Amino acid sequence: MKLEVKHFDLSTGGPLVAVLDDEDAKKLGLMALDRIRIRRLRSKKEIIANVDISTEGIKPGKIGLFFETLQRLGVQEGVHVDIEPASRPRSIDVIMKKLDGHILTREELSILVDDLIHDRLSEVETTYFVAGAYTKGFTLEESAMLTEISVDLGFKLGLKNKIIVDKHCIGGVPGNRTTMIIVPIIAAAGLTIAKTSSRSITSPAGTADVMEVLAPVSLNHEKVKRVVQETGGCIVWQSSLSPHGADEKLIKVRHPLSLDPQGLLLASIMAKKKAVGATHVLIDIPVGEGAKLTYRAGNMLKKKFISLGRKLGMKIKVIITDGSQPIGSGIGPALEARDVLEVLEGDGPEDLRAKSIFIATELLKLAGVKKAKQVVLDVLNSKAAYHKFLEIIRAQGGRKHLIIPEAKYFYSVESPKSGVVKHIANKLIAKLARIAGTPDDKSAGIYLNVRRNNHIHKGDVLFTVYANNAKRLDYAKQFVKRHHKKVVVVG
Amino acid sequence: MKLEVKHFDLSTGGPLVAVLDDEDAKKLGLMALDRIRIRRLRSKKEIIANVDISTEGIKPGKIGLFFETLQRLGVQEGVHVDIEPASRPRSIDVIMKKLDGHILTREELSILVDDLIHDRLSEVETTYFVAGAYTKGFTLEESAMLTEISVDLGFKLGLKNKIIVDKHCIGGVPGNRTTMIIVPIIAAAGLTIAKTSSRSITSPAGTADVMEVLAPVSLNHEKVKRVVQETGGCIVWQSSLSPHGADEKLIKVRHPLSLDPQGLLLASIMAKKKAVGATHVLIDIPVGEGAKLTYRAGNMLKKKFISLGRKLGMKIKVIITDGSQPIGSGIGPALEARDVLEVLEGDGPEDLRAKSIFIATELLKLAGVKKAKQVVLDVLNSKAAYHKFLEIIRAQGGRKHLIIPEAKYFYSVESPKSGVVKHIANKLIAKLARIAGTPDDKSAGIYLNVRRNNHIHKGDVLFTVYANNAKRLDYAKQFVKRHHKKVVVVG
Repeated sequence: MKLEVKHFDLSTGGPLVAVLDDEDAKKLGLMALDRIRIRRLRSKKEIIANVDISTEGIKPGKIGLFFETLQRLGVQEGVHVDIEPASRPRSIDVIMKKLDGHILTREELSILVDDLIHDRLSEVETTYFVAGAYTKGFTLEESAMLTEISVDLGFKLGLKNKIIVDKHCIGGVPGNRTTMIIVPIIAAAGLTIAKTSSRSITSPAGTADVMEVLAPVSLNHEKVKRVVQETGGCIVWQSSLSPHGADEKLIKVRHPLSLDPQGLLLASIMAKKKAVGATHVLIDIPVGEGAKLTYRAGNMLKKKFISLGRKLGMKIKVIITDGSQPIGSGIGPALEARDVLEVLEGDGPEDLRAKSIFIATELLKLAGVKKAKQVVLDVLNSKAAYHKFLEIIRAQGGRKHLIIPEAKYFYSVESPKSGVVKHIANKLIAKLARIAGTPDDKSAGIYLNVRRNNHIHKGDVLFTVYANNAKRLDYAKQFVKRHHKKVVVVG
Repeated sequence: MKLEVKHFDLSTGGPLVAVLDDEDAKKLGLMALDRIRIRRLRSKKEIIANVDISTEGIKPGKIGLFFETLQRLGVQEGVHVDIEPASRPRSIDVIMKKLDGHILTREELSILVDDLIHDRLSEVETTYFVAGAYTKGFTLEESAMLTEISVDLGFKLGLKNKIIVDKHCIGGVPGNRTTMIIVPIIAAAGLTIAKTSSRSITSPAGTADVMEVLAPVSLNHEKVKRVVQETGGCIVWQSSLSPHGADEKLIKVRHPLSLDPQGLLLASIMAKKKAVGATHVLIDIPVGEGAKLTYRAGNMLKKKFISLGRKLGMKIKVIITDGSQPIGSGIGPALEARDVLEVLEGDGPEDLRAKSIFIATELLKLAGVKKAKQVVLDVLNSKAAYHKFLEIIRAQGGRKHLIIPEAKYFYSVESPKSGVVKHIANKLIAKLARIAGTPDDKSAGIYLNVRRNNHIHKGDVLFTVYANNAKRLDYAKQFVKRHHKKVVVVG
């Protein structure tokens, strides 16, 4: 069927979509979400797109193409194209097989990842895959294959170093910005660490958000490679390296239900490590009240990481850490960046410093470095790590003179009584920081003056909320009024 | 955040979608598929819509609204609206619960159906529900509750008759157009049958497609009620009665994987019966080679229908029938309509006639009619059923003089040898008919000259393919050449 192209000036952000008039669709026996082959006339260029059917907005004889579809086909409004029904991509059978509870083969997983990368699956189909992974699970073998396939078909940094160390934290603990301290320590100790980090989705800040206070983090492949080759380290936003990866498409449809199928999660984490060529990886699993996992669940996950590492030929060490209260004083990009700089300068919050030293030491030990703890303390105390950090910041394109933005407004919360801090609620702290404007407002957030078991007096400041607009601060105040005895519990 | 409305002249066919610029979305911490509340300025009117995020096609400070969203909010391009992040609808927790394998309560199912009907769920979220229903299943109690809730919150025909009979066939057998014979028999026998039927999705024709050869089938609520009150029967397209029902939204996302979660299927069928007020229902489950179900699976489904009917206070009779070959000679809307008229006029294919008499008899028995078989034969032989059919056709708006369209081209396939017909392949017959142009080309299809166990001679015509354009006929010929020894197997 020959149709005239109408341009819908809109991006779908991935899937190729073509809109047909109801009657035209009927003539070809097409239903919404079916596929068509669209061919340019007098050209061999053709693409497969998902059909959307409309009774409004498109006339018979016309075909509406969204930005990506138009671009991929290389046509403009007004030209004619030929369309015909196309068959489903092979991964549909793979998805069906997972929904039916079967174990997938390497070939089947390859078909799936390839179709995801090349935008051959609609959002609905991708959702069925995530639902299958969630309800029927993945074996470790499947997760290992998925990891390898994602790297093979996707992004590889291509460093030649024999040893590349890496770290990952499961997250869920406000503050806890150890990565930005560990990376310069490792690089200053002469090892290589190509760290790719995420931005916040629901937390007050991700490492990429915090690093962005000091330097650009959206670097392309070549630039990242050069930064690591020059300095031995980097801290960049992982999605800028493979914006069209299979993982990014899965994340989009996982979001509405916050679904985290463990088999996919494991593969996603390990693929990011394998993509940068990591050989020695430390995984931090914070557990406890207010953390993502209980001690028991953390231990089960630990075993899976270790087995998966073995299958993938990577040396993995997993540490279970206390995730029951924030780590560091700052919560929010600028406040956390300040903590990081202070620790590297020899000061800063003791808990953040101690955890960073511990992880850096474990990483060096894992990579076979002798007297690891002494090495870590040396590069930290001599400021070698601090200077390495400045070097990395500049290599990524950051300014020579660091300027950390400060919020216009603040509001301090005092203890209503004397006593001991019994509990600090991670989730309420995170929520309060987001209400104050994190992560997009870099200078917003919370500064915590206390930790669990601190003895305090009535009237002592427990924490301060920072915001850049009065309305945000007001919302934060209201939230504190409703919840503050639960945010920091004094007993 | 105040934004200026841009009209995207396009319908999504349901879900309310608003497109935001990437940067604006970030400012509010919104991700794709999140929800926002959109409020008209100087008005209390507001709606909740799903967010789509675009880097192309929408400028900062603007919000793109699709047809439905614009209409529901009652605004025009250029006006300003105020938006803020909105929370997820309550049914998200219900969907999560099903994915986790739990049984849903009546209240939870009500929340879900209500959100489906009112377009509060995105396609991705709806897909998670279908995937949950498929992988974790429904108890009969859940299916019964879902049936009742769908009717309560959705469409009800509102007839006052004490006894309303109905029938349903699980499908999968080409031809098999018994409904159009049974409805006039039942109505001529003095009972009431308000039959709502489907169009074809993947078959050569649905009952609504075949009836449409003779009369309009897209009737509104009031019209259907009047037709049934006047004539005692009707044969209409079910989706024209509740185009925005929860079921229609589930069907859309079930289509890409052809997913048929049995718990949803049962509720969907029973809700359609309950919506027309059916009290006595016969379910036909064709089984065997080439049918949808095996004998064993058919029997399991039979038990579920009977239990479900009991829970819903309906008298159900389930028959397991031979579905291993087509029933009737015509396959395709016009050819099937011809078979139906011939049977009602006292002639026509013997198998179609026998099955229709059997089902009509069982239905009358179920409704307590004495000497049911004699009643059926009487109204059939006296042409009372035929005249009732003409009456129903006219009441629905059909022409007085029926014109059945004929195809321009045909191609007869002869037996390559003498012998006995061993098998007729339902699925290949269905595929061939669709290649020839069914269901949209009403006159296209297949006319079968033989049935299983018929003795035939070399050169006898096995079947004839009808098409309205030479290219279609050519495709059909090629398909026959590739498959014809499997379409009708002569041994």
